[in-house]
Amino acid sequence: MIAITLPDGSVKKYEVGSTPMDVAKSISEGLARNVISASFNDTTIESTTPLNEDGSLVLYTWNNEEGKKAFWHSTAHILAQALEALYPHVKLWVGPAIDKGFYYDVDLGDDTISEKDFKTIEDKMLEIARGKHDFKMRSVSKADALSYYKGKNEYKVDLIEGLEDGDITFCDHDSFTDLCRGGHIPNTGIVKAVKILSVAGAYYKGDENNKQLTRVYGISFPKQKDLTDYLELLEEAKKRDHRKLGKELELFTFSQRVGQGLPLWLPKGAALRERLENFLKAAQKKAGYEMVVSPHIGQKELYVTSGHYAKYGEDSFKPIQTPNEGEEFMLKPMNCPHHCEMYNSKPWSYKDLPKRFAEFGTVYRYEQSGELHGLTRVRGFTQDDAHIFCTPDQLDKEFKDVIDLVLYVFGSLGFENFTTQVSIRDPKKPEKYIGNLENWEKAEKAIINAVEDKKLDYIIEEGEAAFYGPKLDFMVKDALGRSWQLGTIQVDYNLPERFELTYKGNDNELHRPVMIHRAPFGSMERFIAILLEHTGGNFPLWLMPEQVSILTLSEKYEKYGQKVLNLLENDEIRALVDNRNETIGKKIREAEMNKIPYMLIVGEQEENDGTVSVRKHSEGDLGTMSISEFSNMLQAEVKKDIKEFK
Amino acid sequence: MIAITLPDGSVKKYEVGSTPMDVAKSISEGLARNVISASFNDTTIESTTPLNEDGSLVLYTWNNEEGKKAFWHSTAHILAQALEALYPHVKLWVGPAIDKGFYYDVDLGDDTISEKDFKTIEDKMLEIARGKHDFKMRSVSKADALSYYKGKNEYKVDLIEGLEDGDITFCDHDSFTDLCRGGHIPNTGIVKAVKILSVAGAYYKGDENNKQLTRVYGISFPKQKDLTDYLELLEEAKKRDHRKLGKELELFTFSQRVGQGLPLWLPKGAALRERLENFLKAAQKKAGYEMVVSPHIGQKELYVTSGHYAKYGEDSFKPIQTPNEGEEFMLKPMNCPHHCEMYNSKPWSYKDLPKRFAEFGTVYRYEQSGELHGLTRVRGFTQDDAHIFCTPDQLDKEFKDVIDLVLYVFGSLGFENFTTQVSIRDPKKPEKYIGNLENWEKAEKAIINAVEDKKLDYIIEEGEAAFYGPKLDFMVKDALGRSWQLGTIQVDYNLPERFELTYKGNDNELHRPVMIHRAPFGSMERFIAILLEHTGGNFPLWLMPEQVSILTLSEKYEKYGQKVLNLLENDEIRALVDNRNETIGKKIREAEMNKIPYMLIVGEQEENDGTVSVRKHSEGDLGTMSISEFSNMLQAEVKKDIKEFK
Repeated sequence: MIAITLPDGSVKKYEVGSTPMDVAKSISEGLARNVISASFNDTTIESTTPLNEDGSLVLYTWNNEEGKKAFWHSTAHILAQALEALYPHVKLWVGPAIDKGFYYDVDLGDDTISEKDFKTIEDKMLEIARGKHDFKMRSVSKADALSYYKGKNEYKVDLIEGLEDGDITFCDHDSFTDLCRGGHIPNTGIVKAVKILSVAGAYYKGDENNKQLTRVYGISFPKQKDLTDYLELLEEAKKRDHRKLGKELELFTFSQRVGQGLPLWLPKGAALRERLENFLKAAQKKAGYEMVVSPHIGQKELYVTSGHYAKYGEDSFKPIQTPNEGEEFMLKPMNCPHHCEMYNSKPWSYKDLPKRFAEFGTVYRYEQSGELHGLTRVRGFTQDDAHIFCTPDQLDKEFKDVIDLVLYVFGSLGFENFTTQVSIRDPKKPEKYIGNLENWEKAEKAIINAVEDKKLDYIIEEGEAAFYGPKLDFMVKDALGRSWQLGTIQVDYNLPERFELTYKGNDNELHRPVMIHRAPFGSMERFIAILLEHTGGNFPLWLMPEQVSILTLSEKYEKYGQKVLNLLENDEIRALVDNRNETIGKKIREAEMNKIPYMLIVGEQEENDGTVSVRKHSEGDLGTMSISEFSNMLQAEVKKDIKEFK
Repeated sequence: MIAITLPDGSVKKYEVGSTPMDVAKSISEGLARNVISASFNDTTIESTTPLNEDGSLVLYTWNNEEGKKAFWHSTAHILAQALEALYPHVKLWVGPAIDKGFYYDVDLGDDTISEKDFKTIEDKMLEIARGKHDFKMRSVSKADALSYYKGKNEYKVDLIEGLEDGDITFCDHDSFTDLCRGGHIPNTGIVKAVKILSVAGAYYKGDENNKQLTRVYGISFPKQKDLTDYLELLEEAKKRDHRKLGKELELFTFSQRVGQGLPLWLPKGAALRERLENFLKAAQKKAGYEMVVSPHIGQKELYVTSGHYAKYGEDSFKPIQTPNEGEEFMLKPMNCPHHCEMYNSKPWSYKDLPKRFAEFGTVYRYEQSGELHGLTRVRGFTQDDAHIFCTPDQLDKEFKDVIDLVLYVFGSLGFENFTTQVSIRDPKKPEKYIGNLENWEKAEKAIINAVEDKKLDYIIEEGEAAFYGPKLDFMVKDALGRSWQLGTIQVDYNLPERFELTYKGNDNELHRPVMIHRAPFGSMERFIAILLEHTGGNFPLWLMPEQVSILTLSEKYEKYGQKVLNLLENDEIRALVDNRNETIGKKIREAEMNKIPYMLIVGEQEENDGTVSVRKHSEGDLGTMSISEFSNMLQAEVKKDIKEFK
């Protein structure tokens, strides 16, 4: 008998050679129906792999990331089999699962695959799936493995040559065999829906000097409905792509001459940013933060002191030379060194702390052009940064207060669905981190205390800490169910040492303050991108660049339109008059396309009665009301969205 | 007879050999009494120089810059004579007039001069002055000049060796003779008051490999009272030095580690900046500007296109290299190229213009460390920049509207006293400027039209234009009578060409827009420095970082103090509570020192009555009033200072 430990800590005895599926069956038939993969002592195995020793077992279903990975990796085998059937000269290289789906890199010889072939491939895959062929792993000697592929597939031969004899396994299903480490679903029949998504070129081994192979991307699901939903989501995500919306709504632009990854914020986007900044500033003021302003460069020496030079130095923008040899500056990759120097501008007493310096600080970090993506991956971005300098005794409370602020920000912007991650250091790689163990442990404890106290949904990730301290990250789910990393809160015992920050304690001695770095939005650029994709551009009313469009029935009513505009502007409502010589239908269509929340139609009737005819974006006619009624309605809507902090 | 043309254009006949003093006498005795120097055909001469040909004559008095120069240069001769009398081994080098006063560089041999010697030198100078010795110029042959100094003064010998024979003149007064180009007052008796201000080291010929000479700084006046006033002004200026006030009021700081010339704005200074920015933003919004945001770097190519690379390139911060060879960026020295690229992000029709893009854009330009000075000469500064893109027909109106905005800004900040300068190009140096003649002439005309129309006090300066266009600069006089260059408005026909900006005219053809660059503050850093020196830190109430300090009579009244604070904060008044365990006298003294406009003293009486005892900064007790009365008084004061734009 062997002792199997399950994730809930319970230990059960099974006969030697029992499979994960046997274990599942011993728990419940329902579980057994859903188990598609497993891990044993942290190694991925099949649900059919016999267990021959004591150990920890985790069973995976479609609802686990690991389960999905096994599902998609297994479908990559089916894809490979289908390609071999359809393209006789195909040579397979590798076929992993990815975040959403899988791909297989193949050498098609003289053949090509284009969109019109997708259906044929999908049909072939489904035919194979319906055969309910078991996936079966077997060990193969290096010699046998090599002789299996020799003369037929130089890619696999190359792969096998890099492996240790004794570590090599093949996976068979139906008539198909592939070199494979394992991690499959029980049989092909579980795959009910497949979709080939795209083909792309991919250099063998990622090296552009090598041959270009064909990468075939696909996705698969255990139910047809899941695929339908996924394709709808893809379609919706395409519509909400922030790069597309940013252009349509004239929020931002990029210029080849200015440079890739350096967004230019157009008037409507700049106004949106400013409203977000003002919103956070108001909350921060209540929470006792003080705004500061620092330059975008500093002497190289500053970043050598902070440790950022060692971290970002040569891989990022290079130091800036000056006409004086030896005098070098750097674009700031972070605001913290500047804030430390501000703290150092005068002596502090424990009675003065905590000090909370906040800045919308624009930082610059070089990214390779291939890595750049709209506003989510840029070379210059503005952090809603702040640094709290406090005594060790104040750390717990400060950390909790910051969490309150982050939750307020998310709540006001409609991100209700989020999880958190506590990133602590990898205890096996102490060389990756600056600072001493005792401080790290203190800091990690403070974070876990805070998330426990605030009853947040959290996971702890070892090895994910920043080089200068542990941190708490917030991952929000958007309206399409996608996860985004947003705000971050980081404890730092290191910079206070490096910058020799001090305060006089009530013992009259000098002590080191603790620092907290935090940014609820993270970066303005990335946050706005996420907000665009979350809302599809239909921001909360208080954020909309233009809240109201006043549409004149004809140019005769311009004067009345202007009067309505002035009255609304007096109430701080953002409106504009569309008095072009166009039909009212066209004006409405354009306002709808521009996602203007309210349209006011004004003509003879309205002018005579001093009223407006109100249409709401994507909802339609709300009837006629007086200007002040309309204004009150809008103001009430804004107040509902955005509550005061604390 | 010779024909003498006077500045008013009138021409009079005089006998050959008449002097400027003779001409003055022929106009009025009063003028003759005040004339101290002159220029003839644009060359500085003495008031006693005989005129031997037709030409243009300008007579100078103490009230002209040129008159002061002659006065101070003449006093340098008196200083030299005094030094020769007091320090037998002294060797003179040069002694020019400067902006305020004069200096003489001398080799004192083994002697030194320190502050305790100043009185003796001044007394000696006044003794010479009282002798009423005439200054008399005479021509000397190079040989005679050399033999006069040979063996006695190697500095003068070196100077003479660099001169052409025939161009050499000496100036005599009393028993003293000096090599001199001329430009003196009639006699030493006009100098009634002198002050030696300081001594400093100065390398011979400014080269640090040469011998260090002693530079003796002084100033002189035609009346004792002028000197007294000047010394008071110096004292006041020292108190108002923005570097001193900035530190005392905790507005900004500098850090050696961050780098010289890179100010760090502390909370109170950042809040001050923000209030100034919000003030301008509100006015700009009314004037139809739209805020944009651009990055602080751009590809080198961007500035090659704009022409800024040729202008700032190698003398400033060098281009920023990246891990990709050939991909270079630059810190932006100006915002205009970014705004041009924003303009280029979509096509425009003449109906869309003018577009007015505004940004508080931080730019970076390298200055040698010796040139840096507080906030007035820095390496990074934030321009209150905007670029107006308009049709040529709109230029006149736009330029005038910008002037209105600048005048509004100055008026709201207490700068009532200003002059303007129209800087046009030097027609003799066309190679200095980008663009064609016709465009330059159009632009210069538009500026002169506007200043005429607005009835501004203006002068035209040839050769002072920016390389890309002519401009209008505003020079304000501060409370101490010092002139500062502030706002600037510049017409630009060049960048629209370089960036190929277009709009579709009502002829359906593409045309080039005209650009206006403008910055009413100029730079936030420099403006705040000037505002500090102008107001001595007693800003208009609406700008003060802290408007009210609530001083508790003892710690018992903290709760009431907090209540007063909350009520004031509800009315958007910036206040703080000083509840330290200190005497009320000390609290008042500190609030006075921190220039807090209002102090509210709260104790038992006030708490019982719901009142506050009000003290005004530097004025004292205003009596007791209810909290709302006090709040209303403050709000009225703010409204009086800052009117709405238009």
